[in-house]
Amino acid sequence: MRVYLDNNATTMIDPKVKEVMDPYLGEMYGNPNSLHKWGTETHPAFRKAIDQLYSGINASDDDDIIVTSCATESNNWILKSIWIEHILNGDKNHIIVSDVEHPSIRTTCSFLETQGVEVTYLSVNANGIVEANTIKEHITDKTALVSIMWANNETGAIFPIKEIAQVCQEQGVLFHSDGVQAIGKIDVDVQDIGIDFMSFSAHKFHGPKGIGGLFIKAPHKLIPLFHGGEQMGGHRAGTIDVASVVGMGEAMYLATNKSAIEYELNEVKRLRDKLQAGVEDLPNLYVFGSKNRVPNTLLIGIKGVEGESMLWDLNRDGIAASTGSACASEDLEANPVLIAVGADDELAHTATRFSLSRFSTEAEIDYTIKSFRRAVYRIREIAGSYAE
Amino acid sequence: MRVYLDNNATTMIDPKVKEVMDPYLGEMYGNPNSLHKWGTETHPAFRKAIDQLYSGINASDDDDIIVTSCATESNNWILKSIWIEHILNGDKNHIIVSDVEHPSIRTTCSFLETQGVEVTYLSVNANGIVEANTIKEHITDKTALVSIMWANNETGAIFPIKEIAQVCQEQGVLFHSDGVQAIGKIDVDVQDIGIDFMSFSAHKFHGPKGIGGLFIKAPHKLIPLFHGGEQMGGHRAGTIDVASVVGMGEAMYLATNKSAIEYELNEVKRLRDKLQAGVEDLPNLYVFGSKNRVPNTLLIGIKGVEGESMLWDLNRDGIAASTGSACASEDLEANPVLIAVGADDELAHTATRFSLSRFSTEAEIDYTIKSFRRAVYRIREIAGSYAE
Repeated sequence: MRVYLDNNATTMIDPKVKEVMDPYLGEMYGNPNSLHKWGTETHPAFRKAIDQLYSGINASDDDDIIVTSCATESNNWILKSIWIEHILNGDKNHIIVSDVEHPSIRTTCSFLETQGVEVTYLSVNANGIVEANTIKEHITDKTALVSIMWANNETGAIFPIKEIAQVCQEQGVLFHSDGVQAIGKIDVDVQDIGIDFMSFSAHKFHGPKGIGGLFIKAPHKLIPLFHGGEQMGGHRAGTIDVASVVGMGEAMYLATNKSAIEYELNEVKRLRDKLQAGVEDLPNLYVFGSKNRVPNTLLIGIKGVEGESMLWDLNRDGIAASTGSACASEDLEANPVLIAVGADDELAHTATRFSLSRFSTEAEIDYTIKSFRRAVYRIREIAGSYAE
Repeated sequence: MRVYLDNNATTMIDPKVKEVMDPYLGEMYGNPNSLHKWGTETHPAFRKAIDQLYSGINASDDDDIIVTSCATESNNWILKSIWIEHILNGDKNHIIVSDVEHPSIRTTCSFLETQGVEVTYLSVNANGIVEANTIKEHITDKTALVSIMWANNETGAIFPIKEIAQVCQEQGVLFHSDGVQAIGKIDVDVQDIGIDFMSFSAHKFHGPKGIGGLFIKAPHKLIPLFHGGEQMGGHRAGTIDVASVVGMGEAMYLATNKSAIEYELNEVKRLRDKLQAGVEDLPNLYVFGSKNRVPNTLLIGIKGVEGESMLWDLNRDGIAASTGSACASEDLEANPVLIAVGADDELAHTATRFSLSRFSTEAEIDYTIKSFRRAVYRIREIAGSYAE
């Protein structure tokens, strides 16, 4: 059996998405900026895809959604644009983030620190989040931006984005959220939230890799990260990758329409909870069980079982899981998020993350429960380090 | 008949390229950074593709080729990295480019000027190029970078890259070239040239859109444009778009192997020259006919025939051509390259560019000659502005 439970790292392209992309990888290869019919024949599908993006996150017509190559680009763009405009050429000097942001936020912040920017990294509480009040306490008149993720990739914890947006608005500070792990899992409504900027990435919601976006609330404008041609209204140069944009639009629709979100909140959650219930009776497990999680994510610390060893046992059974963020999964450090939510250092080395999708099945979950339990017993038996 | 002669704007994905991409848009969707088999099963194809990139431009094993989302990203990256490292945080203040660079170079330079960088824009001579000696004259001890394209997108003129690289090396100045219009058209050998950095884009050589690269000669390192995860050795974060990388590798091989380049230099050139010969007897034409051109490109100014009008007539016959760079083809300004190579202002408004590929056929060229001649007569007849 092949069981893919690593959907927070990347997802399968929905076959319906691949189908709409296909003509644009074949006959319809024109550059949308060209005046001839190879160019213009791409426009209807391109426009439909952009409309699907606006609908998917409920952006208003006045807002901008700029297509980028991935959320890493979007995150670098927002931070570096704010740096150049408001810090290098302005009178601000301060950015606030959480200490569990994606590496594309944290590493960019580390770079900005080398350029004299002051960065406050706020720790998450036992629920894996940063409260709006905590952010309020750290905002100064030098704060240019607050960037707090919508949902965490490792725990699935959902941050109080609406309250944070409100605090930022009251304090007159711009607010960006990395929405990568929220879209397609919970309802994401940028107008309801009142957010200034939000990043997203298609391959996290069954779209293609190499394509993402940045929502920019009207009337904000950003200094481009990609200067050049007039593509995307001059906000982001580079030949439009029509196939991927069309795929991202369709993927957005398929992931965010009302019944899709209902399916996530009910059926995907039911399967995730079944997986959790099927393993949490094992002794010396730490389960991050906050109710306020995206419905697909389960993070477990297992005393005496290195996350790596667990992955290999699962992998032998054909099951894909993760020790945490795929962006960091080639290194074997203690899981900082587990430490932040209160696990001890030993448990933090043992994190295993399962992340489901709408393609996950009951049979896969049953199979995974058995495989996981077997692996815990086997590894603990051979691991001298474990003594109950 | 559908005749695509706008290959300098974008190209058809070679069906062989699409074929190798296909599994990675389907079943093999893993994130290469994941430790399980969905991740690792992508590695052989990824490594093969990277090898194909190295071979295609004859990079040495010590050099870096970093995958980006397009040459616009590569061009922004090199300029902004040099700005931050050598100007903002160093003692240089000057960059030299030609005034016919792609918008991703020129617009980025305009932005850098707002940040206090001094930019010298060198005019091209009547052959459409900048000589190495001219560059030498403008290098100062404050010059951080020279960036000169390998071949021009509008005229096809090939710049004396080897001589320019030598001048830069002698003067101790870094040299970057936008190689977008050279790869797959002429031999591109980064070791022979001794170049420091070179940008390229897959969709200009029958690969997919949304993927490109930057060659970085050892031991140079650049400040990342995308900070984040450890992908591409930490040089460029963001989840690897395996399908597109695999496609770009195959496209690079298909475009740059010895027989492919021979085909360009002989057969594609023969067809281009046939097209040129088939129209240049028309009165009051300006043909950019430099021998030192890439073999696929033909730029023509036609007195009394707006480039736009010509495009529409050709388009009605099913022929795709361009008024110049696709990145600027939605606006209707005088073609700056034609002005630079000596056409008068009227002719510069009338530029029509044909750009062939290895998929162009004799029948298509014959058909295009007829269509073009008919259009010249028709438009001149109805255009009050034209009096012979």
